[in-house]
Amino acid sequence: MRDFLPEDVRRRDYVIGVIERVYERYGFEPLETPAVENLETLTGKYGDEGNQLIFKILKRGEHEASGQADLALRYDLTVPLARVMAHHQAKLPRLFKRYQIQPVWRADRPARGRFREFYQCDVDALGSTSPVVEAEVCAAVSDVLDELGFHDFVIRINHRQLLARILDLSGVEPAKHGEALVAIDKLDKIGREGVVREFKERGVAAGTRLLDLFDAGPDAAPLQGEALDNLRQIVALAGGSSAGPRLKMDFSLARGLSYYTGAIMEINVPDLAGSLGGGGRYDELVGMFSGASIPACGFSLGLERILVVMTERGMFPADLPMNPADVMVASFDEAGLPHAMALAAALRRSSLRVFVYPDPDKIGKQLKYAESRGIPCVAMLGENEIARGEVTLKHLASRAQETHPQDRAGDAVKELLARG
Amino acid sequence: MRDFLPEDVRRRDYVIGVIERVYERYGFEPLETPAVENLETLTGKYGDEGNQLIFKILKRGEHEASGQADLALRYDLTVPLARVMAHHQAKLPRLFKRYQIQPVWRADRPARGRFREFYQCDVDALGSTSPVVEAEVCAAVSDVLDELGFHDFVIRINHRQLLARILDLSGVEPAKHGEALVAIDKLDKIGREGVVREFKERGVAAGTRLLDLFDAGPDAAPLQGEALDNLRQIVALAGGSSAGPRLKMDFSLARGLSYYTGAIMEINVPDLAGSLGGGGRYDELVGMFSGASIPACGFSLGLERILVVMTERGMFPADLPMNPADVMVASFDEAGLPHAMALAAALRRSSLRVFVYPDPDKIGKQLKYAESRGIPCVAMLGENEIARGEVTLKHLASRAQETHPQDRAGDAVKELLARG
Repeated sequence: MRDFLPEDVRRRDYVIGVIERVYERYGFEPLETPAVENLETLTGKYGDEGNQLIFKILKRGEHEASGQADLALRYDLTVPLARVMAHHQAKLPRLFKRYQIQPVWRADRPARGRFREFYQCDVDALGSTSPVVEAEVCAAVSDVLDELGFHDFVIRINHRQLLARILDLSGVEPAKHGEALVAIDKLDKIGREGVVREFKERGVAAGTRLLDLFDAGPDAAPLQGEALDNLRQIVALAGGSSAGPRLKMDFSLARGLSYYTGAIMEINVPDLAGSLGGGGRYDELVGMFSGASIPACGFSLGLERILVVMTERGMFPADLPMNPADVMVASFDEAGLPHAMALAAALRRSSLRVFVYPDPDKIGKQLKYAESRGIPCVAMLGENEIARGEVTLKHLASRAQETHPQDRAGDAVKELLARG
Repeated sequence: MRDFLPEDVRRRDYVIGVIERVYERYGFEPLETPAVENLETLTGKYGDEGNQLIFKILKRGEHEASGQADLALRYDLTVPLARVMAHHQAKLPRLFKRYQIQPVWRADRPARGRFREFYQCDVDALGSTSPVVEAEVCAAVSDVLDELGFHDFVIRINHRQLLARILDLSGVEPAKHGEALVAIDKLDKIGREGVVREFKERGVAAGTRLLDLFDAGPDAAPLQGEALDNLRQIVALAGGSSAGPRLKMDFSLARGLSYYTGAIMEINVPDLAGSLGGGGRYDELVGMFSGASIPACGFSLGLERILVVMTERGMFPADLPMNPADVMVASFDEAGLPHAMALAAALRRSSLRVFVYPDPDKIGKQLKYAESRGIPCVAMLGENEIARGEVTLKHLASRAQETHPQDRAGDAVKELLARG
């Protein structure tokens, strides 16, 4: 788990800002849930491997000595959403579209773009089985990546029922479908031979047709049916959005999580192993909490993955402000300090970001500090300036220095800043 | 711990937005730290009571069965800041002003405006002992409350060394200062007699002068000295800021946390027991992590406390947007859906927030949904509109309905919205 120093936070906030703006444009509403869930809410939702990666919280007070856990850290944003949907149903609309951008925690071994605390940026729509929902969540995440400057991503799409059908047709017995999916999920990492080898190791008896069916286009006769029709509809509906040219059917896409029931999606770029995000339809998960089943479908973007690629490719806007202030007010002596503070207050009323240098160090040291922090302008109030109601402004890039009446200090600073 | 449904999140984001904007204006830079810290980083920093309120995380994998904890949830934002300052010193400026708005967790019994997960909104300045720092953090939090519409808050200020002096003068022996401070901290809750009673119970032998000294003004002879001079400077320096008229010296202010070494501050409003926030100088805390001592001073606002008071007083702006979208695109039949999606994409390119109704329900049901969600306008594409390249817009408040060419749908919606 990492600290984010100011420049990190500013880059993260820039990306989060784009994501929020796009999600809002799609009519998703913000939701936040606590970092801590009841342990029993999370167990059994993420498969065996997932269960082991949950951070568990020790009971408090007199029960601490028992060594038992009753709470746990959020593992994803989907299960908490399902819980919210069940608990607050009376307060929520029957069609509910929410976005949620919060950290989740997994006790995983970290890898490139993978951390034990990481942010998920989720959109989900609940209450409808329409393929419009899948098309909209694909369009939303596609708009996000477009606005961030990604132009080479692919959204692969498959369907859990189609995958089950392909496994059946290939002769994989139903009891082995789970094992087969885990192996298939590694196709892009270990290749065809690797998957065949994994099948053998896992005792999956797959006919020779399996890999051929993965390559089959949507016109292949054995694949026709409702699931494929559903995928075709999604692709057609997304046709007019930014997701249109990015959507590719890939019958080998598996996705790890066990709660998906329909379409599944994943976004990839060439220079990152693993995905930038993924999602799918999960029509049974809310029912696990409420009894009443509510259809649902969503997409999750991984903030850290996006940041890793953007950093390596240098994709951040050049004008992202990274300095602490627009102007620094220098300190001369104790008598001058109240004047410096009053000037700072006036500059702030002009909406400028103002750093008051707190100690009466030598002016050279103060200017050096401003320069090292990228603060473009320093305001100085010596005895003469105070006596005359003036202020001297120094523009650090040009070394230009000019004196203005204090009551137009804000405008004068803005003019200096406009010079760059 | 609570879920925040969309309207809650929008109110919270409004307040956080004001806080961030003001903190940035003071030259504070954003910092974020992980929710999870090493347990040993936190233990021993918050006093005995604090230690017991820390949420501890069970070891993972093979060590889980030991029932031992090695990690813990963040208890405040100050100790993580001190750790960051020590660990990343080479990457941080010698004068470092940071703000941090993140949740913290305490296994406390919840009360009004008190929760087990709550957000702190902190500003801290490190690297200077100047009273300018105290004056600036007071001015910053005061500007925040001003902009949120609070006009009746008081910032009480005291000094740990002055408090120690008062206790000495009152005949409290040094070993009992801690006990005495805990009792004094309750003065506004239990009154003078209550404090005298607590003193007796805790075996604190306080001379009769104690409560008199609390009431003494800053001119009282026995209180003169460096600590009082420091408070006078802070109050004078803050004089020209919004904090000026709010600062009141209160020699009985104690503050619970043990790491303070100099000035201590607390903000109160009449209608909330407890404070909206507090802070102070802690010149020794960073040294506990790095060896090298770095002077520091900060202020923390409690987001939930602010929200409780704002909600009870009805202080949120009336025009805070609470609906999911500006316009809803209705669905007619499968053939029309791609057209509806294309219209939605066009409206979004005009920066409108668009909700696509996903199912071809009866139009009355769809309109009712829009109305119940506060969506002011519905765009309808029937067969006729599609054939003519038009769109019919319905303004729900006035029931007015008008038809426009699709290529000016964005402008037409904006004109409708402007009518209110």
